[in-house]
Amino acid sequence: MAADKIDTIVSLSKRRGFVYPSSEIYGGQRAAWDYGPLGVELKDNIKRQWWRSMVIGRDDVVGIDTSVILAPEVWQASGHVETFTDPLTECLSCHKRFRADHLEEAYEAKHGHLPANGLADLNCPNCGNKGAFTEPKQFSGLLSTHLGVTQDSGSLAYLRPETAQGIFISFAAVQQTSRKKPPFGIAQIGKSFRNEITPGNFIFRTREFEQMEMEFFVKPGEDEQWHEHWLQQRWNWYLDLGIREENIRLFEHPAEKLSHYSKRTVDIEYRFQFGGSEFGELEGVANRTDYDLASHAKASGVDLTYFDQEANERWYPYVIEPAAGVNRAMLAFLLDAYTEDEAPNAKGVMEKRTVLRLDPRLSPVKVAVLPLSRNPKLSPKAKGLAEALRKYWNVDFDDAGAIGRRYRRQDEIGTPFAVTVDFDTLDDDAVTVRERDTMKQERVSLSQVEQYLGSRLLGC
Amino acid sequence: MAADKIDTIVSLSKRRGFVYPSSEIYGGQRAAWDYGPLGVELKDNIKRQWWRSMVIGRDDVVGIDTSVILAPEVWQASGHVETFTDPLTECLSCHKRFRADHLEEAYEAKHGHLPANGLADLNCPNCGNKGAFTEPKQFSGLLSTHLGVTQDSGSLAYLRPETAQGIFISFAAVQQTSRKKPPFGIAQIGKSFRNEITPGNFIFRTREFEQMEMEFFVKPGEDEQWHEHWLQQRWNWYLDLGIREENIRLFEHPAEKLSHYSKRTVDIEYRFQFGGSEFGELEGVANRTDYDLASHAKASGVDLTYFDQEANERWYPYVIEPAAGVNRAMLAFLLDAYTEDEAPNAKGVMEKRTVLRLDPRLSPVKVAVLPLSRNPKLSPKAKGLAEALRKYWNVDFDDAGAIGRRYRRQDEIGTPFAVTVDFDTLDDDAVTVRERDTMKQERVSLSQVEQYLGSRLLGC
Repeated sequence: MAADKIDTIVSLSKRRGFVYPSSEIYGGQRAAWDYGPLGVELKDNIKRQWWRSMVIGRDDVVGIDTSVILAPEVWQASGHVETFTDPLTECLSCHKRFRADHLEEAYEAKHGHLPANGLADLNCPNCGNKGAFTEPKQFSGLLSTHLGVTQDSGSLAYLRPETAQGIFISFAAVQQTSRKKPPFGIAQIGKSFRNEITPGNFIFRTREFEQMEMEFFVKPGEDEQWHEHWLQQRWNWYLDLGIREENIRLFEHPAEKLSHYSKRTVDIEYRFQFGGSEFGELEGVANRTDYDLASHAKASGVDLTYFDQEANERWYPYVIEPAAGVNRAMLAFLLDAYTEDEAPNAKGVMEKRTVLRLDPRLSPVKVAVLPLSRNPKLSPKAKGLAEALRKYWNVDFDDAGAIGRRYRRQDEIGTPFAVTVDFDTLDDDAVTVRERDTMKQERVSLSQVEQYLGSRLLGC
Repeated sequence: MAADKIDTIVSLSKRRGFVYPSSEIYGGQRAAWDYGPLGVELKDNIKRQWWRSMVIGRDDVVGIDTSVILAPEVWQASGHVETFTDPLTECLSCHKRFRADHLEEAYEAKHGHLPANGLADLNCPNCGNKGAFTEPKQFSGLLSTHLGVTQDSGSLAYLRPETAQGIFISFAAVQQTSRKKPPFGIAQIGKSFRNEITPGNFIFRTREFEQMEMEFFVKPGEDEQWHEHWLQQRWNWYLDLGIREENIRLFEHPAEKLSHYSKRTVDIEYRFQFGGSEFGELEGVANRTDYDLASHAKASGVDLTYFDQEANERWYPYVIEPAAGVNRAMLAFLLDAYTEDEAPNAKGVMEKRTVLRLDPRLSPVKVAVLPLSRNPKLSPKAKGLAEALRKYWNVDFDDAGAIGRRYRRQDEIGTPFAVTVDFDTLDDDAVTVRERDTMKQERVSLSQVEQYLGSRLLGC
């Protein structure tokens, strides 16, 4: 499976309604994706689990939701207008465009060292021609628009390339209204936009994507221990939601490659196994120091220090930032959950079975209700049960086709429980509950089924 | 209160962290707003209730999440590029810009009829000068950007002005993968962007806003009865979540003012009481006919009809669209919940009390845990309780100041329950639970408090 697992997931995603190519009836919008009925539930569940873990479940983090279009001064002060660029190069032979740093990194991953003569040593990944690239040019990753009636520099605005800056510029307002003191954090989930030169690898790199970012403000000097704390927390979050430990690793950014704001950055990487590279970034946990608050204070003239009453001194908090990608997390959870095993068919013969072993908290559908057949006595009972369970969970009602086939359909989308209403139900007022992974079946009285499922779907 | 109630809400929102002016440290981004720790919870609760009511709770509606930036062809085919415009006029005296239709509607609301000579009869709302407006010019409400390396017509893209089109272009894919048959619906919550000429009235009209839209696909001929159905459903949704019936009304769009796609549109309006107009649009429920599907089929060359096996015929489904604004709903819920009554202070003297009588399902904080004083015995007990309750709900722990003052703080943000840990707790292992609206207090054993609150916070 390995290398083509990603293709399997792309195909499953489209076939079952997790992810579709965007604007497909118009031939597609290059490397943009829409989330179908199952995808939107899975994605929302990931966001909800993050919010619970990072905001609701803690006393020291609050949430926020800031605008996509902030004042342009924000991106001047943050350094994005000047330095948020990628080195763009073009193959002189086929005219395809690439990020020069990506080409060199791919070479390094293969040969263990960077190309001695830079791009001159590289073959074009598209046409194979060697060493015929234009001199890399810095290309801005900011998408811009114009607000208002005129299209001039006064109306120029940017779509945010990260949610973080919305948090920094709100630091003082949030700190005061929420009456929190460092160490405390502000979390945000939302869309960001980047003018990627080479979007691709399914939902891994797209121009439009969702972030889950948290900025944790601490006393300078306590930043390194808090960095460790958050790295551990975030690592545990993925494991707790079912990612297998052998598929994630830490990547320490070398000092010379750190972003302009960072003292130290460690990525949590997942074994995505895209062509050419084994691991890819899932989340970055950075020590952003006081760079952002100090920059915004300088540019705006507003004091963004914190007055520490105990120590009777003012300081700029240092900031630890765990920044995760919603779409990358979703891809990792899909890849990690994808399993093929065997199950007996109607004749008792073992056949291949596809199962998404998603943590039930992430599963898009929690319970499937399956009447054994389309029967005037079974159908209303099954529909009534589905209706009752919908008060709590996303429920799929399916009465089309053989029962074995319907189990497979639910296994393939990761539904943890399937409840079958059969002819015995009419006598014993009980149903069969089947668990996805073990395929074990248990007879549960109709009056107990909500409680039975409730205790197994805690935290969903 | 009436007319300045909106100012009271703006002030409360800023002071308590519901809504802040965006980019305020840079002097603000005109008419853009950020949602603080309480605002983001309230807004999320509204979205969650909508999703539960429209998607999870029903067998005939599924969700979706499509891109903000769709293929530009989408907006050509939908008619937005050509007709999504507003009539822009400028006062020749003070050079302030207005929407000509808004000026005329304001005149009509005051005089009961439209101005006989159009703009020539109107005074400038800014400088008072009469009849000196430029000829209205059609101004596009679409915000645009450029994707990729070059800034030419080939890279031009639009930020969606509505989430609906993402649903229409996905109709066939969703219908097939979800195996739904008309009548069924596709729902979406997401941000949209419009280049408003006159954003304003707090979060009522902004360039960036969130929509909750559902497109319900039905057999032609059944459209009018489904229109009534959804109008009733949506009306009930607001009432069920606490909006007082006297503050909403229906507004039937006159036939000559219908949008180009609409056969009939009825708005649900709320008594926002902005200067000049009593009611404002909260949600539009439109019969979009087969306009959108037929337009996209024609433009894309893809068949978007539905094959009706029973009748053995193909038809374009008609579409009923309940389209609500998240931000407007939030403003309506805030206005409607805002109440001033009286409560006794520490000396038993009656004093003014501000209460947000939000439905508990919408309240940003569900439970406040308040140790009577900062005491080494009370604090850990109270903190332990807060910790335990955080598994289920958003909990506020507050130990700063007099208990009466802390109750007021919670009343003002709409927290339905406050749990006080006092010195008796050390003996009887019980706490006092105070209900927000009645201010009634009940003694509840610590071992029972989760269950006590659970039964009163059902559906939260």
